[in-house]
Amino acid sequence: MPGFERHVFICHNTRPEGAPRVSCTADGKSELHVVLQQQVKAAGLGRTVRINKSGCLDQCEHGPMMVVYPEAVWYGGVRPEDAAEIVQEHLVGGRPVERLRVAEGCLNAEKCPHRG
Amino acid sequence: MPGFERHVFICHNTRPEGAPRVSCTADGKSELHVVLQQQVKAAGLGRTVRINKSGCLDQCEHGPMMVVYPEAVWYGGVRPEDAAEIVQEHLVGGRPVERLRVAEGCLNAEKCPHRG
Repeated sequence: MPGFERHVFICHNTRPEGAPRVSCTADGKSELHVVLQQQVKAAGLGRTVRINKSGCLDQCEHGPMMVVYPEAVWYGGVRPEDAAEIVQEHLVGGRPVERLRVAEGCLNAEKCPHRG
Repeated sequence: MPGFERHVFICHNTRPEGAPRVSCTADGKSELHVVLQQQVKAAGLGRTVRINKSGCLDQCEHGPMMVVYPEAVWYGGVRPEDAAEIVQEHLVGGRPVERLRVAEGCLNAEKCPHRG
């Protein structure tokens, strides 16, 4: 893969008060992003893995959301304290963190147990 | 691929005046993004291809930048008037638009003919 070995996109979207769908960040800032960047660098992956800010990934009900390409692994409900496991297991070890993955039936689903 | 068949990330980054690296947008708005979204929808790909806003993709000297996953095709110097060709050739037809691709030797290169 040219470019990066892995490219991680973290939703930073913040919706207005009262919006019908929820937000992945309260104020456009993501502690998860900051911690992931630090830990990727500390793991020696600073040149091969990019942690990227993104706009809305359209899976709001499962957020805070992130997706890892090229393998298209979607993680939902991710907290800063999950960063170490994501880095060591997935980004270093190549094994996605199953407990954080969004179920396939929930991705892009108009209805799912979380979306109603 | 669960999620989307293709996931397109378009850099919306704007740097402050006088920054050493250039910006992909002048004001955080991207006409390319708007046009791509419209044309993807018109082509009937609205549910399978997502056009996403991203932060800096770290290939600033080749911007305006976008990347298409899962195939990791990087386009540089992309203009709104390139959108139709990207949609028809790549997103509908599966054939990357070679004239817009960033050369592999330029991706993540500390020095390249464009970066100096």
